[in-house]
Amino acid sequence: MTSTTPLTVPAESLFGLTNLPYGVYSVPGREPRVATRYGDHVVDLAVLLGDDVFARTSLNAFMAQGHTRWVAVRAAITERLRGEVPAEAVHDLGAVTLHLPFEVADYVDFYASEHHASNLGRLFRPDNPDPLMPNWKHLPVGYHGRAASVVVSGTDIVRPSGQRKGPQDPAPVFGPSTRLDIEAELGFVLGTGSAMGDRIAAEDAERHIFGVVLFNDWSARDIQAWEYVPLGPNLGKSFASTISPWVVPLLALDAARVPVPAQEPAVLPYLRMERPWGLDIDLTVSWNGQVVSRPPYAAMYWSPAQMLAHQTVNGAPSRTGDLFASGTVSGPRKDQRGAFIELTWGGKEPITVNGRQRTFLEDGDEIVLAATAPGADGTRLGFGEARGRITGGRREAY
Amino acid sequence: MTSTTPLTVPAESLFGLTNLPYGVYSVPGREPRVATRYGDHVVDLAVLLGDDVFARTSLNAFMAQGHTRWVAVRAAITERLRGEVPAEAVHDLGAVTLHLPFEVADYVDFYASEHHASNLGRLFRPDNPDPLMPNWKHLPVGYHGRAASVVVSGTDIVRPSGQRKGPQDPAPVFGPSTRLDIEAELGFVLGTGSAMGDRIAAEDAERHIFGVVLFNDWSARDIQAWEYVPLGPNLGKSFASTISPWVVPLLALDAARVPVPAQEPAVLPYLRMERPWGLDIDLTVSWNGQVVSRPPYAAMYWSPAQMLAHQTVNGAPSRTGDLFASGTVSGPRKDQRGAFIELTWGGKEPITVNGRQRTFLEDGDEIVLAATAPGADGTRLGFGEARGRITGGRREAY
Repeated sequence: MTSTTPLTVPAESLFGLTNLPYGVYSVPGREPRVATRYGDHVVDLAVLLGDDVFARTSLNAFMAQGHTRWVAVRAAITERLRGEVPAEAVHDLGAVTLHLPFEVADYVDFYASEHHASNLGRLFRPDNPDPLMPNWKHLPVGYHGRAASVVVSGTDIVRPSGQRKGPQDPAPVFGPSTRLDIEAELGFVLGTGSAMGDRIAAEDAERHIFGVVLFNDWSARDIQAWEYVPLGPNLGKSFASTISPWVVPLLALDAARVPVPAQEPAVLPYLRMERPWGLDIDLTVSWNGQVVSRPPYAAMYWSPAQMLAHQTVNGAPSRTGDLFASGTVSGPRKDQRGAFIELTWGGKEPITVNGRQRTFLEDGDEIVLAATAPGADGTRLGFGEARGRITGGRREAY
Repeated sequence: MTSTTPLTVPAESLFGLTNLPYGVYSVPGREPRVATRYGDHVVDLAVLLGDDVFARTSLNAFMAQGHTRWVAVRAAITERLRGEVPAEAVHDLGAVTLHLPFEVADYVDFYASEHHASNLGRLFRPDNPDPLMPNWKHLPVGYHGRAASVVVSGTDIVRPSGQRKGPQDPAPVFGPSTRLDIEAELGFVLGTGSAMGDRIAAEDAERHIFGVVLFNDWSARDIQAWEYVPLGPNLGKSFASTISPWVVPLLALDAARVPVPAQEPAVLPYLRMERPWGLDIDLTVSWNGQVVSRPPYAAMYWSPAQMLAHQTVNGAPSRTGDLFASGTVSGPRKDQRGAFIELTWGGKEPITVNGRQRTFLEDGDEIVLAATAPGADGTRLGFGEARGRITGGRREAY
């Protein structure tokens, strides 16, 4: 007989029965497996549910089973956690290692905040009368990024080197980035995709999007500014992106659904939504332990359903493990901006962090993204954190 | 006893002993496996060499074994094909199905032809005095694309739909692309990669690049022109890219190595090369059976070694199966341009194809890319073909 235990979790926990995110954990000497988080307990789902689809090193096999299964498994976990739980299913959060929860297939980054896009337009193209490009309110602008660079919270971030060229420099110089920045975003993970030539309609997005993670799109602004014309960001972004280890199911976020801001001019029919698809998720950005920004996801112009409908409307295939991120979440207020280039206005208006005037990231700096959202039954849900510390880049001359 | 057979191949074959490309084939009722092509024979490598790394549905496991193994296996294949070959290892090319030869990890498309970049600069940004952007001669400009959309030769290409907006249109309209184009490119497949934070130096590129494929980067110019500012191409490209089924080993291309054109201004040290890294590969573009262009790869400004050194110089990780493409191969002459937007100057100067005036692709059109290069011992090597036929897109109103 296995010993069992009733698990207790404080009522105010951000990881109660209305959350139940999915992650991948390991304990020393054993292979990573799929778990849920309940309070500060990490609960092995292969043991809890007796289903080998969770005895894997990633969520992909489970996610690929589709929406009906996600609903059923969520109900089964809830029911099992209300009763006795086998002791060997349960680990303390502090005693496990958390891993990248899914294998990333294709990764696309959008640019869905009007506040962020307007701020960056003013900073990168000061001579343009309109900070937004003419296409911005007609389609969710996005670009593909490097899937291999997506790492789990806690992974050190090596400062990238690359080419940069100031407006006064006669030629580009090479060296470690001097304008290393963050972008506080949310990432959306596709559970099931679509075949080449097919589309995912906006109203079907919730049957395909499995869940939500925090996403830090580390950005080397000096490298980006020099390289990005005309084909978009590449090395300024491709060195690393950090995600939180817990995937909050979209199924847990019904109470967080709010209308997106009014979209004017009206969008083309393929971008119309039937249900509210904004998400009332409050992010925080902490810099060496001090909260420096509180970006509100509810202010985002384009919704995840629109991003998904757009990226498949041309018949591009999509797959289990596809990850698309929102782009920087910035609100209308200065203290709601999700990137330091905006918070410090291109480095010209430093902010005070732990008593020092700061603009971009120095070696040793640590950034933590966190978020909460309304859950069912008046609860509040947590997203864990996306944490990363900057380490010095390679210093050799070339 | 197994029956054996000496294989004969005509001396003028583009697939003699100096080529020996790798692919993945299947016969009815059996799983795909790795093979080489010798003349018009498809030779199963798991049978020929008795090595289960070839009894896989992709080349990835073999590629990951690294450069020393690639050299040894190439020598072993050559030796075995000179003697008696087990009959069950051999299939007729016409009797097999060829598959995508490797699993694509991350895919990056470059823009390495000065002629192509200059032509597109003139077409997309006619008001700029210099058709090349200021960064173009300092770094190989590139962007990430959709790995899931890479398909093998012979796959039908569904015409993409999307938003487009002509300069006179008050608002964008939605529908099937009316300016569907090709880009004749080469693709380079990474056999072994590099860890996050590390780099691949230009002089080490040949230990990482496993081989070369033909690459057709299908492009919807109307969608691309409307979407690409400021984050680069997305839906104008992400619907499909076609590769040839045979990966020509870089080891087979020693005789094709030539210097790249003079690079002026001098490149930064991390982009310098010790060996000649240009490739004297002659491409042809056939439109419904008529050759309409002969792009010379030897005219490319940036080399594959430079593209690889650049994309990892910021510490971005790279992996087995990474695919980077050259961008359109265009030479200085009009009949050497590798995209129809250049060949027809934005559609304003139609070309004659089978007696008709043509600009962009119509449903039913078929495009075939092919190429040859010098091989060892005065031979000539073939690359097979990258073939694709346009089928009508979805026609519903939205």
